[in-house]
Amino acid sequence: MSKFPEKGLPREEVLNLLEDKTKVDLTFSSGKILGSMCTMPHELAIEVFARYIDRNLGDPGLHPGTRKIEEEVIEMLSDLLHLEKGYGHIVSGGTEANILAVRAFRNISDAERPELILPKSAHFSFIKAGEMLGVKLVWAELKQDYAVDVKDVEAKISDNTIGIVGIAGTTGLGVVDDIPALSDLAREYGIPLHVDAAFGGFVIPFAKSLGYDLPDFDFKLKGVESITIDPHKMGMAPIPAGGIIFRRKKYLKAISVLAPYLAGGKVWQATITGTRPGASVLAVWALIKHLGFEGYREIVRKAMELSRWFAEEIKKLNNAWLVREPMLNIVSFQTKNLRKVERELKRRGWGISAHRGYIRIVFMPHVTKEMVEEFLRDLREVLK
Amino acid sequence: MSKFPEKGLPREEVLNLLEDKTKVDLTFSSGKILGSMCTMPHELAIEVFARYIDRNLGDPGLHPGTRKIEEEVIEMLSDLLHLEKGYGHIVSGGTEANILAVRAFRNISDAERPELILPKSAHFSFIKAGEMLGVKLVWAELKQDYAVDVKDVEAKISDNTIGIVGIAGTTGLGVVDDIPALSDLAREYGIPLHVDAAFGGFVIPFAKSLGYDLPDFDFKLKGVESITIDPHKMGMAPIPAGGIIFRRKKYLKAISVLAPYLAGGKVWQATITGTRPGASVLAVWALIKHLGFEGYREIVRKAMELSRWFAEEIKKLNNAWLVREPMLNIVSFQTKNLRKVERELKRRGWGISAHRGYIRIVFMPHVTKEMVEEFLRDLREVLK
Repeated sequence: MSKFPEKGLPREEVLNLLEDKTKVDLTFSSGKILGSMCTMPHELAIEVFARYIDRNLGDPGLHPGTRKIEEEVIEMLSDLLHLEKGYGHIVSGGTEANILAVRAFRNISDAERPELILPKSAHFSFIKAGEMLGVKLVWAELKQDYAVDVKDVEAKISDNTIGIVGIAGTTGLGVVDDIPALSDLAREYGIPLHVDAAFGGFVIPFAKSLGYDLPDFDFKLKGVESITIDPHKMGMAPIPAGGIIFRRKKYLKAISVLAPYLAGGKVWQATITGTRPGASVLAVWALIKHLGFEGYREIVRKAMELSRWFAEEIKKLNNAWLVREPMLNIVSFQTKNLRKVERELKRRGWGISAHRGYIRIVFMPHVTKEMVEEFLRDLREVLK
Repeated sequence: MSKFPEKGLPREEVLNLLEDKTKVDLTFSSGKILGSMCTMPHELAIEVFARYIDRNLGDPGLHPGTRKIEEEVIEMLSDLLHLEKGYGHIVSGGTEANILAVRAFRNISDAERPELILPKSAHFSFIKAGEMLGVKLVWAELKQDYAVDVKDVEAKISDNTIGIVGIAGTTGLGVVDDIPALSDLAREYGIPLHVDAAFGGFVIPFAKSLGYDLPDFDFKLKGVESITIDPHKMGMAPIPAGGIIFRRKKYLKAISVLAPYLAGGKVWQATITGTRPGASVLAVWALIKHLGFEGYREIVRKAMELSRWFAEEIKKLNNAWLVREPMLNIVSFQTKNLRKVERELKRRGWGISAHRGYIRIVFMPHVTKEMVEEFLRDLREVLK
């Protein structure tokens, strides 16, 4: 058991200890992390984060400039998602964003035993949301292609349904559900649709503009009432930076709580967090301004091309096969003797895992062709 | 409406724009923020945060060193709070910490209509917790000294009571409730007691060792089952860094959800957030190691002494008076024509507010005697 130390150590000694203790961490520059949806943040974002690390958006009256910039970030993300005026926040991550959407749907609904219909491929943040918020999760089946079965979603709608979830980039396989069909369904039944684009939000708009054939997934579709989009995944922002955007103000109002006490004056808070890092918001703003649509498109182009090349390489292997053709920059594959293969790859230092029944490779910006070639060499050896 | 830009701007231009847009923010070095519970983070913490900004504790299998350090931080904080072995996490802030405690109490209880008894002085994070978790908040009256009326707490206990909250450093006045009496009550009725020491956790242990007469508030008291303690307040850590510590593992288990998908292997997550900043944890670890008990005690000594001096100065004024004698490094006072006084002080640039019916000064590490003297000069003028 570590004790709270009586005396302090010199700063250099602390830094050395820290360096030593974190040696066992895999870093994105190690060339070994292939299975994470996070990446090394962009250097500009790190500089901005450190420079403005004192800003607290939990007390926006003190930091009106940072608050204004958050509004601009929400405007820019709304624009990216084809919404003229959106309502939302940069939050701690996709989990908070998804919880806020479910909370808004629950609070607006008058269902006595609220139920949320969501694909079996949904992220486990919805399990947290359901448990915390007392919302029953009604799981919809997937089709053979691992996209949600829209007919099964429809069959599961009841008087207690407070909302439907569609996924734009599933965590396991990067599948984009048929959001247009879900949107039609949502409008037909008058039920709000939430799109979890935590991963896909910073991929699909750019991939579509590159010519990849992907379904619409955003506010262009009238049934979509809220979208989760995470800058700290493919947006290259530092953790923590998730995003939630609502089409209508009423959703944000439905989850707002009055915050007294603050030095800058009282405000309504829709986020779960109270004190929250303004630096995250400034970093996201800086990245969008610095990279622009063209910069992100280039990042996505490389990631998509590499993922397609990798998928073709997997197809050439004996004893390994794709779970399905990739839609985004995520490729998942199965192998013979999967447990043994996983163990052996991990032993060789690869940051992957196979506990979903397949190995998932996420082609994040830090993943280079050299890394993937080395991984394939190891994989071929292990499969022999 | 800001549009998502098509083309990016050079990094220097982005940094200049950001500097320009944040000019209106008050900074802790401005000498004007007197009413915030946040402060300028310690420079070592900023360096550590920036250096390890890529660590994700949502995927601890990738970062076993950082995970181990979080365990050490929880051990050190437990030790500070007189618990040999605690269970908890560094989280996004006091709000998440308080929500996790209420969630654990709710999940462990078999009450059909769960109720939480809490002082009327409790932080608004409990309003969020109650709304989200479907827990009815039963507010206990305060005594004349603004500490909770323990008799009223007892009178409000019912079969539906899932827990009691005591506050060690109320947000408005820095009052430490009679936690020993609440602890006795909690044990007598077999109800868990949560102590919100978000602010006081990094003050009281040091102030007591300096000889300030403050009640016990921590795990030394057997009825205390969980404590919120925020490094990003008086701990001088960067936002986000709250802390939650449970006495028993069963509470953490009661809020744990299985997380598949991760690159480092599956894990149970008790936090609300999924992806979460390892850098926050490393920064807290570095500060505790660097400052030690003696370093924090010195910070608290200065803050307490300055607050006592200020309180005496307020007593000398006509037309202004203390709401109550300060217990911690928070001094709140009322004035004649409070609205006018507030408006005039704000006009002079002071980061304070009076919407609770008084002006609250929090003697954080960035608050110097010079600042306070200048504030008093302005206050005297305004009161004339």
